[in-house]
Amino acid sequence: MVTIAVDAMGGDHAPHNVVQGALACVRDARCDFRVLLVGREDAIRAELPATIPEAVSIRHTDDVVEMNDPIASALKSRKQSSMYRGLEWHRDGDVQGFISAGNTGAVMALSTLLLGRLPGVARPCIGTFLPSSRGPVLLIDAGANVDSKPLHLAQFGIMGSIYTELVMERSSPNVGLLNVGEEKSKGNDASIAAWPLLQAAPIRFIGNIEGRDILKGTADVVVCDGFTGNIILKFAESFPGLLKSKFYDYAERGLVQKLWVGLIARTIKNMIKDWDYQEYGGVPLLGVNGISIIGHGSSSPRAIMNMIFAAKHMVDRRVNESIREAMTSQQSPT
Amino acid sequence: MVTIAVDAMGGDHAPHNVVQGALACVRDARCDFRVLLVGREDAIRAELPATIPEAVSIRHTDDVVEMNDPIASALKSRKQSSMYRGLEWHRDGDVQGFISAGNTGAVMALSTLLLGRLPGVARPCIGTFLPSSRGPVLLIDAGANVDSKPLHLAQFGIMGSIYTELVMERSSPNVGLLNVGEEKSKGNDASIAAWPLLQAAPIRFIGNIEGRDILKGTADVVVCDGFTGNIILKFAESFPGLLKSKFYDYAERGLVQKLWVGLIARTIKNMIKDWDYQEYGGVPLLGVNGISIIGHGSSSPRAIMNMIFAAKHMVDRRVNESIREAMTSQQSPT
Repeated sequence: MVTIAVDAMGGDHAPHNVVQGALACVRDARCDFRVLLVGREDAIRAELPATIPEAVSIRHTDDVVEMNDPIASALKSRKQSSMYRGLEWHRDGDVQGFISAGNTGAVMALSTLLLGRLPGVARPCIGTFLPSSRGPVLLIDAGANVDSKPLHLAQFGIMGSIYTELVMERSSPNVGLLNVGEEKSKGNDASIAAWPLLQAAPIRFIGNIEGRDILKGTADVVVCDGFTGNIILKFAESFPGLLKSKFYDYAERGLVQKLWVGLIARTIKNMIKDWDYQEYGGVPLLGVNGISIIGHGSSSPRAIMNMIFAAKHMVDRRVNESIREAMTSQQSPT
Repeated sequence: MVTIAVDAMGGDHAPHNVVQGALACVRDARCDFRVLLVGREDAIRAELPATIPEAVSIRHTDDVVEMNDPIASALKSRKQSSMYRGLEWHRDGDVQGFISAGNTGAVMALSTLLLGRLPGVARPCIGTFLPSSRGPVLLIDAGANVDSKPLHLAQFGIMGSIYTELVMERSSPNVGLLNVGEEKSKGNDASIAAWPLLQAAPIRFIGNIEGRDILKGTADVVVCDGFTGNIILKFAESFPGLLKSKFYDYAERGLVQKLWVGLIARTIKNMIKDWDYQEYGGVPLLGVNGISIIGHGSSSPRAIMNMIFAAKHMVDRRVNESIREAMTSQQSPT
């Protein structure tokens, strides 16, 4: 039976939100697997009911990677942490996947260090979801890397396409290269050189797309370097906050405006609920030799539950096997 | 008396919107300058009233740079166009500024070719406005360049600071470097190397800012390479469209929803009116030895009017003189 390891100490509201998320998961009718809560046993037990569900188990670890630990210190001096040990147990085959809402940089670095890369993968990358008129689109890489070579960009496209097809269940997803113009001659050096590599890849490459095309859903998979992707992601995440501040400003104009804003706020909130990142519940680190799902520090129990299910889907749909196959069947990079 | 040359043939709705914008400008109480309409005389005259305002004059040109002309052909074979001739007259001192809502790539290339760069400026750049909780912020470079070196980024910061101080009238504007983390060690190679150059520049550099900080108005000037800037700009411009599509989707749920959406749409539109790029009316190409304001192809008469006023402000506030001074007082790049 599949077991997913859960970093019970990861996130701003750990272990409470994490344990609640794990409980919601094993109580869900879809749950046909086990959840291993990794962390300080007493702290975890305090969050669990007297009768622990049969599908939940605990494995104690002493230490914790703090949210603001520098990555280097997490790698060196947090070897007894829930994050480090959880990933080691995944590497050793005790569990089939790992999720954490802890320190993002540390999860990425430790996952890459402990799990290693899949054969042929030059750089693991993060795929994240952005809303669009046609449903969520996968932005890849969203920040695992900063300077990306053309080959890296092409591999992001291949991995993103596989993930979208197998986990999002979209057959032959459109893959677009995020750029400053539609023509293949447009862009910076890396994107110009990535174009023919993406064109030759076993994916449905639709060419360059522009910033304005992301929210239209022109591409199911939006390929970019992690520098641009991280900035776009954080920029997009801040959009509801700006709307909210507009609502506050408007409400302050007077009592009528205040009442009116109160009435319409719920409608708007409902309309843009796909901007709520808790719904997606974490993002996959693709290209590592294992399954590592990374969540927002502020992850809700619902987000944690969705992350655990995402890890299980990656096991079931054999995402890494497909990536391995696609990478080894590609020509070796020159 | 200052004269601003206006490319009457530039834009999707030229010459109509351009001529209307010029008329609105000279009828405005603030107008203490002349406007020279450049383009096909008969087409321009057809848009003018029988009695042409005293501050408006026309200079005929035969040719037009089309919106979809490749830049190379605009440079080579459109030497009799309104854009080319207007910029030549600016170079020759007949007029003190130039505005166009035509082919953006062509305006940039021709401005750089014909006006040349200000002494010490390595790369001209485009500053564009994004809304924020604290009023518009200047994103620079928004797409004049694709691959930017550290020195270029530092110069974008200096030019953006000068423009924001003199034209936006914000004293000692905060300048932030758009990056993937706050620490100065974060980012891609170019941004890491740009940090100390910005720190040493005669501006109020507040360090790295992230994508989420743009709409908060943390920085008055957001420095980035033109690749990232162009993608961010076009992404931001597509937000209102996504909201609109959400409204349509909601309205389609039923009659009650339709009526409700009709009621609230006006409020929301009013709230996000600073996302209307017509209000800002074009963006300056900074670093060229002259004044060149570039507008959206879809520019309204109001946008054209604002562009003409922006050009006049750049003359009055001596923006280029300040840039020249800042650049020549900088250490020469090694």
